Amino acid sequence: MLHASIRVSTVFVLAIVSVVLASQPPIDVHVPDAFSGNSRILFTGLGMPQTNEKVPKEELDPNFWRRSANEELQKRLSNKLNTNKAKNVIFFLGDGMPLTTVAAARILKGQREGKPGEESQLSFEKFPYTGLSRTYCTNAQVADSACTSTAYLTGVKTNILFLGVSPNVDFNDCKASMDPANDLTSLYDWAQAAGKSTGFITTTTLTHASPSGGYAHVSNRLWECDTDVRTYLGDDYTTDCIDMATQLVTEEPGRKLDFIMGGGIGKFLPKTMIDPFGNPGERSDGKNLLSEWQRRHDGGVFVSSRKKMNAINIEQTTSVLGIFQSKLMNYHHHATESEPTLAEMTETAIKFLRKNDNGYVVFIEGGLIDYGNHANMPGISLDETLELSKAVELARNMTDPDDTLIVVTADHAHPLSISGYPERGNDILGLNNMGVDSNGVSYATLNYAIGPEQYLDEHGNRRELYGEFGGDPDFLFPSYIKSSMGNHAGDDVGVWASGPYAHLFTGHLQQNTLPHLMAYAACIGDGAKCCD
Amino acid sequence: MLHASIRVSTVFVLAIVSVVLASQPPIDVHVPDAFSGNSRILFTGLGMPQTNEKVPKEELDPNFWRRSANEELQKRLSNKLNTNKAKNVIFFLGDGMPLTTVAAARILKGQREGKPGEESQLSFEKFPYTGLSRTYCTNAQVADSACTSTAYLTGVKTNILFLGVSPNVDFNDCKASMDPANDLTSLYDWAQAAGKSTGFITTTTLTHASPSGGYAHVSNRLWECDTDVRTYLGDDYTTDCIDMATQLVTEEPGRKLDFIMGGGIGKFLPKTMIDPFGNPGERSDGKNLLSEWQRRHDGGVFVSSRKKMNAINIEQTTSVLGIFQSKLMNYHHHATESEPTLAEMTETAIKFLRKNDNGYVVFIEGGLIDYGNHANMPGISLDETLELSKAVELARNMTDPDDTLIVVTADHAHPLSISGYPERGNDILGLNNMGVDSNGVSYATLNYAIGPEQYLDEHGNRRELYGEFGGDPDFLFPSYIKSSMGNHAGDDVGVWASGPYAHLFTGHLQQNTLPHLMAYAACIGDGAKCCD
Repeated sequence: MLHASIRVSTVFVLAIVSVVLASQPPIDVHVPDAFSGNSRILFTGLGMPQTNEKVPKEELDPNFWRRSANEELQKRLSNKLNTNKAKNVIFFLGDGMPLTTVAAARILKGQREGKPGEESQLSFEKFPYTGLSRTYCTNAQVADSACTSTAYLTGVKTNILFLGVSPNVDFNDCKASMDPANDLTSLYDWAQAAGKSTGFITTTTLTHASPSGGYAHVSNRLWECDTDVRTYLGDDYTTDCIDMATQLVTEEPGRKLDFIMGGGIGKFLPKTMIDPFGNPGERSDGKNLLSEWQRRHDGGVFVSSRKKMNAINIEQTTSVLGIFQSKLMNYHHHATESEPTLAEMTETAIKFLRKNDNGYVVFIEGGLIDYGNHANMPGISLDETLELSKAVELARNMTDPDDTLIVVTADHAHPLSISGYPERGNDILGLNNMGVDSNGVSYATLNYAIGPEQYLDEHGNRRELYGEFGGDPDFLFPSYIKSSMGNHAGDDVGVWASGPYAHLFTGHLQQNTLPHLMAYAACIGDGAKCCD
Repeated sequence: MLHASIRVSTVFVLAIVSVVLASQPPIDVHVPDAFSGNSRILFTGLGMPQTNEKVPKEELDPNFWRRSANEELQKRLSNKLNTNKAKNVIFFLGDGMPLTTVAAARILKGQREGKPGEESQLSFEKFPYTGLSRTYCTNAQVADSACTSTAYLTGVKTNILFLGVSPNVDFNDCKASMDPANDLTSLYDWAQAAGKSTGFITTTTLTHASPSGGYAHVSNRLWECDTDVRTYLGDDYTTDCIDMATQLVTEEPGRKLDFIMGGGIGKFLPKTMIDPFGNPGERSDGKNLLSEWQRRHDGGVFVSSRKKMNAINIEQTTSVLGIFQSKLMNYHHHATESEPTLAEMTETAIKFLRKNDNGYVVFIEGGLIDYGNHANMPGISLDETLELSKAVELARNMTDPDDTLIVVTADHAHPLSISGYPERGNDILGLNNMGVDSNGVSYATLNYAIGPEQYLDEHGNRRELYGEFGGDPDFLFPSYIKSSMGNHAGDDVGVWASGPYAHLFTGHLQQNTLPHLMAYAACIGDGAKCCD
C-alpha cells in the first residue's frame, strides 16, 4: 500500500524527501493547507520513512505505551512530599546547557548504547520535579555567565558581567565594587554561617564566572588576577582593588571554602614561577596565592593531578584545593590522564564534605558545555553534558534523598536547534536523513543561529556536507550568522530537583529564586527557612 | 569609570558592540579565555550597555529580588496538593509552540504594556506545576502534529502522519486503518463513557491534525474529505474508506461530541454547494455533512459567525457546531469581524459544557502558532501565543481550581532562537541592539534554522536589515537553511498544569503520558483512576 510518488496536481509540492541518506526509496508526501483568509498560502511539508524498520519492536504495541505511561503515573503517585530539612545541598550547573542540548545529549546517550536514542534519559531527567528558570539580567535580555551566577548563588539579579555586586555599581568601577554596601552574600556565606562545609568544583577555572558569583565582588568578571585588574583599570588601578583570585584565598566566604577544584592555576601564581603544568603564572604582584592558601589552611592539601587527588587522605585532611590545568581544564574528549573527570571530582568532594555532621553545600559546574556550544561543536557540548549527567548520577547514588537535596540547572541557553523531520534514530551528530533544502542540499540536524561556519559555496548557497561529519567531536556545526564564535540565547533553562523540598523547584521561576529555595530547604541564610 | 575602548593586545578581539541601534556610544568588552589543553583557543565576546537607564528602578535594589524570590517561595509553600477528582478537564494546546516562542511571547506581552518585557508572564506561566514533554514519534525523531495528537489524546505514540491508529499500520493503508484492532480510543471516548460532555475548539480546521487524533482513525492525516481520500488512494479507493469529516459526524466518538468549533467547512460540503463564506465545498460524494450533523443532533445549533455564536441560547441548546471559515481561520492579526477569538470560543464552550453535572472534557487548540512559525513570522506566532494565553486566563477565571484541571502544552517545537546579547527591553521583534556579525552587519534577535528568507546579498553575505522590520506582523524573519517554509524541531515542549492532580504534571514525561494523567485525575478511561 505504498505509493512511490503521489502527486496532487493542484497543490504546491514542498516536501521532496531526500534520497541521499535514506536506506530505502522514500515516498513524497505532500501536506497541503491553503490559508484562505488573507491571501497567503501556507503548506506543511513532511517527509516520512516507509517502514517501521527502525522502530523498536515493543513500541509497535499500543500497550507498550499504556504500560509505560502507567509507570510514569505510578512514579509520580509514589512521590511523597519530602519536607525533611536538607542537611546537604548539591547544586549542579550545566553552563550554557539549553534544553535543546539536554534533548540532543539524551539522544546521543541512547545512540552510544546502540538504541535509536530518543527514548533515553539523562540521570537528572529521572528527577521527580522540573521547573523553568528565567535567565535575563537586570540590563540584559540575554545573559552572560557572570550575572546569572550572581542570581543563582546570591539570590539577586544584577548586570551582565557583574559577580556578587548589585546592579547599582558601574561596570569596571572597583571602588564601588569593594564597598560592602554593594556586595551580596551567597549560598557559601549562608552555609558557612550555619556551620556547614562548603565547596565548589568546575571544569573551567577557579576564577571563571560560574563559581565566582558566590565568592567574588567585582563589577567586571575579568578581574581574575591583579594583571587583569591593571589591564582593565589602566590609570585608575590601585592596590586597593582586590582581584578575584586574591578574594578567593583571602576574603570571606572564599577563604572559608573547604573544597575547591578546577583549572586556572595561572591566576594564583606570579609570572616568575612555572606552574606544575609547565606554564608561567599570570600575576604581576609577585604573590603566590597557593602558598598563601596553604599558610591559611593548616591540614589542607593541594593537589594538581588525578593521581594526587586519589591519594588524598580524606579523614586526615581539613581542606582541599585541586587545580589541574594552567587555564581551563580540557574537554573530556581531549583530557589528559592527569585530569580527573567531573564525576571523579564530585566523588572526592562528597567523600570529603560528608565528614561534617552539620552537612555541606557544594556547587559543581560542568563548565565546558558552554565552550562546546560557543565553538558550535555539539560533539563536545553533548559529551560534556553526558559527563555532567554521570556526575549527577554518582552524587545521587552516594547520598540519601532523605537528607540531600540535589538541584541541576543551567545558567543560560544557546541558540541550538534540532531541525527538520529526521527519522527515528537519525544520527544526532549527523545530517538530517529526511530533509533537503530548496536546492536539494542536505542539512545537519543540529544548527546554531550564530557561529564561525556557514558552509556556503562561491554563490552563497549552502554546500553539501555529506561525508564531512565523520564522528569528529570537534566538527564545527553550521550556523546562519557569521561570527568568530557562537553566542548565548534568551529562552528559559531547565531545573531538575530531587531530595528535601524538591517539590518547590517546579513552575516558572526567576533564576535568583533558586538559592532562596535551597536556603529554605537547608535552613540557612537570612530569609524564610523550613525549620522556622 | 567607563573606558571607551579597552584593548588587550594579546587577545583576539571578538566583541564589537553594534553602534547602529544603541542609544549611547557603546564600549568594547573583550572577554578572553585561552583554552590551553588541546591547542584550541576559545573566546567569549559580550556586549554591554553602559548604563542602567533601561533597568526598572526597583530592580536596582537587591531587596527587590529577595522579596520577589520570597513571594515565589511562599506561593510554592501555599500550593496544597489538590487530590480532588477533576470534574472537568480543559486541555489547551499551542500547536508548534516551543519554549522559545513562549519566552518571546512573554517579552512581547510586556513590551506591549510599555515595560522591558522579560519580567512579564503569560497566564499559564503562573500555573503552579510545569513539566517537560518528549515529542518524538515511533518512527520520527522530530514529530508532526498528527502523531503527537495521537499521543496526547489517545495515550499511545504512533507513526508520523497517523491519527488515532497504532504504528502497526502502513502509511496510507485504509483497510488497516479501518480495522478496529488498530484503532485507539481517546480522551473523548473515555469522557463520553463516563457521562461527561466533550468537545474541541481549534483555530485551524475541524479536520486538521491536532483535534483529530481524538476522533479520527487514519494512517494518512490528509484524508480529510472523500476527495482527499480519492487523491491519496488513487486506484485503491473504495467507498469503504471513510474520510475524517465523515468520521467526525457519523462515528464514535466524533458524533457524540457536544461542542465543536473551528474552521474548515469545505470538507463537510459538496463541491456543488457554496458555503456561508462564498466558497464551494470540497466533497466529491455529494454529501452535506452539516445537514447530517443537524439530523443527528436534535436541539443542536450550527453557527458560522461570532454574532450567531453569541446568540446561542446556551440553556436550550443540546449541541453546538461552529465553523467560521472555509479553510483555516484567520490569524488573530487579520481576523474578520465575524470570526470569534480563541478566548471567545472558549468562553462559549465553558458556558455550554458546564451544564452537565457530570462535568466535561474539552480540547482547545491555538493552532495558528504553528502556522506563524512555519511561515517564520514571529509577529504572528507570538500574537497567536498571546491569544492562547488570554483563552487560558479566561478559562482559569471561569472555573474552580478545586474541580477543574487545566493543562497547557505544545505538540512539538520549532527551531526558533533568541540570540546574541541584546540589552534589557530590546524589541523582541526587532534587531538585536547589541550585536553585529563578522561583517559588521546587525542581525535579528529571533532567527529560524529553516525558512524562505536568508537575506543574503549578491556575495552570499547577510545584508543589513535595519529599518525593514517596522512592526509588520507578517515580516518574514531570517533563517539559515533555505526552504519554502519552516520545519519543526525536536526539543521538548513545556507542560503547565493547575487544578486537581496538577502536581502529576511535573518532571520529564513522554507526551503520551499526558492523557493518562488527565484520565487518572478525572476518573475516566480504562487505566488507573484517582477514584479507584
